[in-house]
Amino acid sequence: MASRGIRPAGIKDVARLAGVSASTVSKALNGNGQLRETTRERIRDAAEQLGFTPDSRGRALASGRSFTVGLITTDSSGRFSIPIMLGAEDALTAGEMGLVLCDTRDDPLREQHYLKSLVSRRVDGIIVTGRRVEPRAPIDVPIPVVYAFSPSTDPSDTSVVVDDHAGAASTVRHLHTVGRKRIAHVTGPESHLSARIRAAATQEAASTTFAGQPLFGEWSERWGRLAVDVLLREHPEVDAITCGSDQIARGVCDRLRELGRSVPGDIAVTGYDNWSVMALASRPPLTTVDMELEELGRRTANLLLDAIAGSPHPGPLRLPTRLIPRESTLGT
Amino acid sequence: MASRGIRPAGIKDVARLAGVSASTVSKALNGNGQLRETTRERIRDAAEQLGFTPDSRGRALASGRSFTVGLITTDSSGRFSIPIMLGAEDALTAGEMGLVLCDTRDDPLREQHYLKSLVSRRVDGIIVTGRRVEPRAPIDVPIPVVYAFSPSTDPSDTSVVVDDHAGAASTVRHLHTVGRKRIAHVTGPESHLSARIRAAATQEAASTTFAGQPLFGEWSERWGRLAVDVLLREHPEVDAITCGSDQIARGVCDRLRELGRSVPGDIAVTGYDNWSVMALASRPPLTTVDMELEELGRRTANLLLDAIAGSPHPGPLRLPTRLIPRESTLGT
Repeated sequence: MASRGIRPAGIKDVARLAGVSASTVSKALNGNGQLRETTRERIRDAAEQLGFTPDSRGRALASGRSFTVGLITTDSSGRFSIPIMLGAEDALTAGEMGLVLCDTRDDPLREQHYLKSLVSRRVDGIIVTGRRVEPRAPIDVPIPVVYAFSPSTDPSDTSVVVDDHAGAASTVRHLHTVGRKRIAHVTGPESHLSARIRAAATQEAASTTFAGQPLFGEWSERWGRLAVDVLLREHPEVDAITCGSDQIARGVCDRLRELGRSVPGDIAVTGYDNWSVMALASRPPLTTVDMELEELGRRTANLLLDAIAGSPHPGPLRLPTRLIPRESTLGT
Repeated sequence: MASRGIRPAGIKDVARLAGVSASTVSKALNGNGQLRETTRERIRDAAEQLGFTPDSRGRALASGRSFTVGLITTDSSGRFSIPIMLGAEDALTAGEMGLVLCDTRDDPLREQHYLKSLVSRRVDGIIVTGRRVEPRAPIDVPIPVVYAFSPSTDPSDTSVVVDDHAGAASTVRHLHTVGRKRIAHVTGPESHLSARIRAAATQEAASTTFAGQPLFGEWSERWGRLAVDVLLREHPEVDAITCGSDQIARGVCDRLRELGRSVPGDIAVTGYDNWSVMALASRPPLTTVDMELEELGRRTANLLLDAIAGSPHPGPLRLPTRLIPRESTLGT
């Protein structure tokens, strides 16, 4: 069992065991100072024997840094912020930085509380992320901040976002490549910027091959199923349906199968998100767009590390998406 | 934009503006010392004007604590550890503690690296969690540790786990209540302890109403669909199918519908997990078992706070699950 309540060995314990002064221990373990190699070894052995780990808070106070970064997220369900967080954590760990998690649960008071707490902890920087691509008000703290996924409304802030326009256009190019000529679009609520961006980009890329108007609804399988009926009544000639999310696309595939229409034989279908529980469980598995959110998290963390080191990169950065072709457009 | 690179106001700046000494500022802001109320107010005004926040690292060094807890998880996909983490974060925040995230990605070397780093940061305690309910080797650190979801193999360690036995039994009791008399069970791989526990508990609770043997397979919708065919061939008389996960149950419902069998009219179905994208999108929505993982995270954090305060609770703690009745057993 973990030896609870036992005080961790300190530098003085190591000094006592090695028969030297505490400052000699410090020199030996930091690899500096004029010491005989035998002394240095004796001290290292003593440190190892006692399981001594240097107190990084000393390093932190001496350097004026805490080697800690705060992550503020509004996305308690975590669909988008979790991969971003994991990517950031991965990049920060390589730089020996700790990531402190702050879930505001969309509560502005809670956000203020977290900001004060992070500043009081003297974190070296803050990553701000959320579940929506709508720009958000910048936070006001005297340390570097980078926004991920949800950009800051201030264009001079560093914001790392997904290039949803290019992502949606890539599905249309793919459908043209596989010979589709009548392309419809089914997506989430028109009040969501991501739905509007993807719809506009799809329409623009499809140009004269676009069928009707984008169908806005909700981010659900149920809406995908319902939209198929609307679409086939008004545009029976469609040979492809691009969807604003994998959930919608899965509902579209299910309804087409129930109606006896083959995917992709009669109608090709594309999703968006590459959310594996949806995209892979769909029948057939979905061609979709991966927003590469873990990479977005890594890039965000690296930009923050640059800013902490005194080299900020002001302005927005738009990262490319990746098209994942599967059976829903290619067949088996 | 965030005012990058500006030095945060220090206690000396507040002292200068208020025309007092730094130690007087400290007394005033900590609410102790013999000070006139007017002086105290002047200092508070100065602190507010400068946006001064006390450096919590000072408090940390003085108290010998860092007011930080590490969370070690092996579960990079996050299905189970994310709600646990959010619950822990919620409980810790109330106690003004920060949660440092460490995702080991199932790599023992990475886990060792994190442990050293957390000890060197002088975190006050560590939460260890994972994606499997199999007991895991305890970690060896000189600070309090609590295990969540994946218990420690050492029975004297504090481990907070789900009572899966009671959870599975609750689905059978519910099915008996709604009059079902032939109950089958479809679940994940037999190599997974959670599958074996749930299968054994189901069989025991169903007793003479249990049909055949538990069907072990994989945690997927596809397996749920395939298992229906196996089951109906060998036990055409079943009137209820309990499943080891919502994904399996969703596959079971889909296949039954394709075969023209009504759920729950002909056959009632239960899931496990209350994973909303599966349980609610299923047709019909699933009666299922909620493991209450966010509450498990909160309890874990509170037990860790107790241990940090010197009152550990050694041994395992098994938390109850909650049955969520929906259309797949109740109809509409």
